[in-house]
Amino acid sequence: MENDRNQLYSAYCDLMLKGADINNASAVLGWDQETYMPPKGAEARGRQLSTLAGLAHEVLTSDKLERLLKELSARTDMTDVQQNNVRLSLDDFEKNKKLPGDFVEELTKQTSECFNAWIEARNKNDFGIFAPSLTKMVGLKRKQAELYGYKAHPYDALADDYEKGITVALLDPIFAGIREQLPPILAKIKAAPQVDDSFFDRHFPKQQQWDFGIEVMKRMGFDFDAGRQDYSEHPFTTSFAPSDVRLTTRVDENNYASMLWSCIHECGHGLYEQGLPGDQYGQPLGQAASLGIHESQSRIWENCIGRGLDFWKFFYPKLQAQFPQQLADITAEAFFKAANKVEPSLVRTEADELTYHFHVMIRYEIEKQLIEGSLEVKDLRNKWNQLYQQYLGVTPPDDKSGVLQDVHWSHGSFGYFPTYTLGSFYAAQFYAQVQKDIPGLLQQVATGDLKEFLQWLREKVHIHGRRYTSEELCERITGQKLDPSFFIRYAVAKYKDVYGI
Amino acid sequence: MENDRNQLYSAYCDLMLKGADINNASAVLGWDQETYMPPKGAEARGRQLSTLAGLAHEVLTSDKLERLLKELSARTDMTDVQQNNVRLSLDDFEKNKKLPGDFVEELTKQTSECFNAWIEARNKNDFGIFAPSLTKMVGLKRKQAELYGYKAHPYDALADDYEKGITVALLDPIFAGIREQLPPILAKIKAAPQVDDSFFDRHFPKQQQWDFGIEVMKRMGFDFDAGRQDYSEHPFTTSFAPSDVRLTTRVDENNYASMLWSCIHECGHGLYEQGLPGDQYGQPLGQAASLGIHESQSRIWENCIGRGLDFWKFFYPKLQAQFPQQLADITAEAFFKAANKVEPSLVRTEADELTYHFHVMIRYEIEKQLIEGSLEVKDLRNKWNQLYQQYLGVTPPDDKSGVLQDVHWSHGSFGYFPTYTLGSFYAAQFYAQVQKDIPGLLQQVATGDLKEFLQWLREKVHIHGRRYTSEELCERITGQKLDPSFFIRYAVAKYKDVYGI
Repeated sequence: MENDRNQLYSAYCDLMLKGADINNASAVLGWDQETYMPPKGAEARGRQLSTLAGLAHEVLTSDKLERLLKELSARTDMTDVQQNNVRLSLDDFEKNKKLPGDFVEELTKQTSECFNAWIEARNKNDFGIFAPSLTKMVGLKRKQAELYGYKAHPYDALADDYEKGITVALLDPIFAGIREQLPPILAKIKAAPQVDDSFFDRHFPKQQQWDFGIEVMKRMGFDFDAGRQDYSEHPFTTSFAPSDVRLTTRVDENNYASMLWSCIHECGHGLYEQGLPGDQYGQPLGQAASLGIHESQSRIWENCIGRGLDFWKFFYPKLQAQFPQQLADITAEAFFKAANKVEPSLVRTEADELTYHFHVMIRYEIEKQLIEGSLEVKDLRNKWNQLYQQYLGVTPPDDKSGVLQDVHWSHGSFGYFPTYTLGSFYAAQFYAQVQKDIPGLLQQVATGDLKEFLQWLREKVHIHGRRYTSEELCERITGQKLDPSFFIRYAVAKYKDVYGI
Repeated sequence: MENDRNQLYSAYCDLMLKGADINNASAVLGWDQETYMPPKGAEARGRQLSTLAGLAHEVLTSDKLERLLKELSARTDMTDVQQNNVRLSLDDFEKNKKLPGDFVEELTKQTSECFNAWIEARNKNDFGIFAPSLTKMVGLKRKQAELYGYKAHPYDALADDYEKGITVALLDPIFAGIREQLPPILAKIKAAPQVDDSFFDRHFPKQQQWDFGIEVMKRMGFDFDAGRQDYSEHPFTTSFAPSDVRLTTRVDENNYASMLWSCIHECGHGLYEQGLPGDQYGQPLGQAASLGIHESQSRIWENCIGRGLDFWKFFYPKLQAQFPQQLADITAEAFFKAANKVEPSLVRTEADELTYHFHVMIRYEIEKQLIEGSLEVKDLRNKWNQLYQQYLGVTPPDDKSGVLQDVHWSHGSFGYFPTYTLGSFYAAQFYAQVQKDIPGLLQQVATGDLKEFLQWLREKVHIHGRRYTSEELCERITGQKLDPSFFIRYAVAKYKDVYGI
């Protein structure tokens, strides 16, 4: 009986491992595509990624896997780990199965084409180059929503891929809260004496920026024997196994802020990937809980820790030593304030923590409309520019700093953006909790000792993989569901220090 | 009827493309493994490569492909290109089919493990660390020879993977010729006044070595929009499509000779890959003719062109400008002589053109014996050292410069080494021909104009892919079969210039 169970479970594991191997091979090809691949390699790479996607889909929607999952689900003698893996795999299976293999290959091929069109459009600063590819992509995503099926809104079907259970019905009130609660804080900040962050635009040589980033990442606990950092057009984190996690960054020599916190941010993602249980490679318990939780890990490091005064008590003297000329006249406190300057701006990835959520809200509104069909790609640039004017009071001077700034839609990732806001809100709630759980945390941070903090994240979040949903995890860690008021309190406290509001 | 043929042929192409996509994805993973992969990534990478190898094997040995190949082979209405592709695919199919899927996966996994053991053994300078993995590998290769089947010698079955039709019966006389004809030339060189190449050991900074290498490669015609160069432990060339060809190199700041000609060598391989017909991607006519022909392309560039006096007439002033201090006291002629210094030595990849063939002969003798079972891995180091003493008069002081110097056996590549000697011999024969076909060639080379030479290689070799065997290609180009006397005449002429023999 037990033998029988173990045999079944092991047959299931073999299939899952095969699927994971193919998907991780795709991830290697994707990483190379955005870091080292020469331009003429794009077409063949598109083919190769599409073929691999088709193969993974074949394995992960095979009748054999279905049979195994149904047999295993009916059993009552499985271990807790086995039960959870099977339960989650069956969920995935039923969702995957809804997409025909042809569709998945087409989508993957279109993703590669669309990404390359986005690169070209960005280089030539012309949304028109990207629009035809994006139109096809939106068409495919609308089709995907229909194939998945949904109750209330087609967007729900797509967003669920990134954040299990998230819906327009849940997101609309969250973004309504942002529209309501952030403007008064922003108004107070605008009325206060402004912060000077102009020194970030001094000349910071590439190699030294890189070196300092690596030093911070080492101190955060990133294992460089199980990962690395490279350059790419748009910073991202990908993983081929917890023992091989890849981060990327980009450097602007005349805008240091662009790289520094992006490094810390991606490193937060990377630490999560390195902290996932390696013995569950290929199984759901070896995967991250959700994109929202993933983002909570990058943001708790980037914003709560990495933009905190205590963090810079330790790191600022080191930074000054790296850039003695550039930072000679800047105190640690002035640096901390500059790191938290609030100013409505054009580019999401360079936005401050507060106005950031307007950037997300705009994208959320736009992609919801694209998917429901109430907005067409040809009107996207105008819509974008109009919303930026409305919420942030700025208008993009060109497409590169406007509608072409993000890679996500070129990847076909519709429903992804809201996870950034969810991640921020989870991060604020976790950060409140960790300060209770580790009373000496800030003193540790101020001496550059980040080990206990990482250990807390490892135990509370990383090690569980996908065992709990975002909501369950949040309740286990903080005793309550996601509550955006944690973020509001965190923001008010921070801007009190920065702006005296 | 024609429709029917086109449908069949297109179904065959689809399967071949799928197989090629998987194999090229494996090549990306292999490239990353040896260039950027962090050490802890090795285990998962081994799994992933093994899974992909299994999948490619499934596709390329499928009943569906067999059926298509047999139907297409029986037809008389195919185009010449179609006929050739089908004929070669059927050959491959029948060979592939002899290896069970399990065996291929085991071999791929063992290759990955064995490669990592070799890296570790090299770092720790201890053959003992590598021996257990290599023993398993030899066992698998002996099994592979049995699975393939052979008439005269198990080695024939393996060598045929790299050079169609090559056998011990053909190779033994070639290496006997080397044993007979090279020593008298070597003796004359030893008796002549010696060449000074000690300036190569001056300090040549890494970045400048790199930059000069890139300049030479550009001039050779390598398309950097369709390929790139990176660092690795052992230089190699790999390709994911003619539009994405990857070269690697390594730099020793105190031994410039180590990198410079290796760059030119790998670039010769890379130009061949870039010159293969892109519209035949996935089909045999899109592949290189054989490893021997591949090696002829690297060696004709490295040795015939890149170590010729005319080449340095153009490049030496540039090299001096790059390294004004290091080369101030060295004339172009002294440089040319140093580039061709002959001296029995320990390391194959740094050997001169002449004694190089002793290095190959030693490996050939050893691997032949390992495969036939007359030599065991435990006795390999002793055997190696004894043969080096016998043929080259040198004894490795350690394993790193002895038995651990080459990556090939760790990759399971038994039967590969002889293609280096074949390549050299083909190169000498082609070089004699191209000088007849392009009477002004040396004048062109002396002005840095390498375009017509590359064009000749493109038309005579690259564009044909696998349409002709090595021997057929050699006859088409030079009017006769491979004749080692071309190499002997080439060597005598060169060493007359260098040593006045």
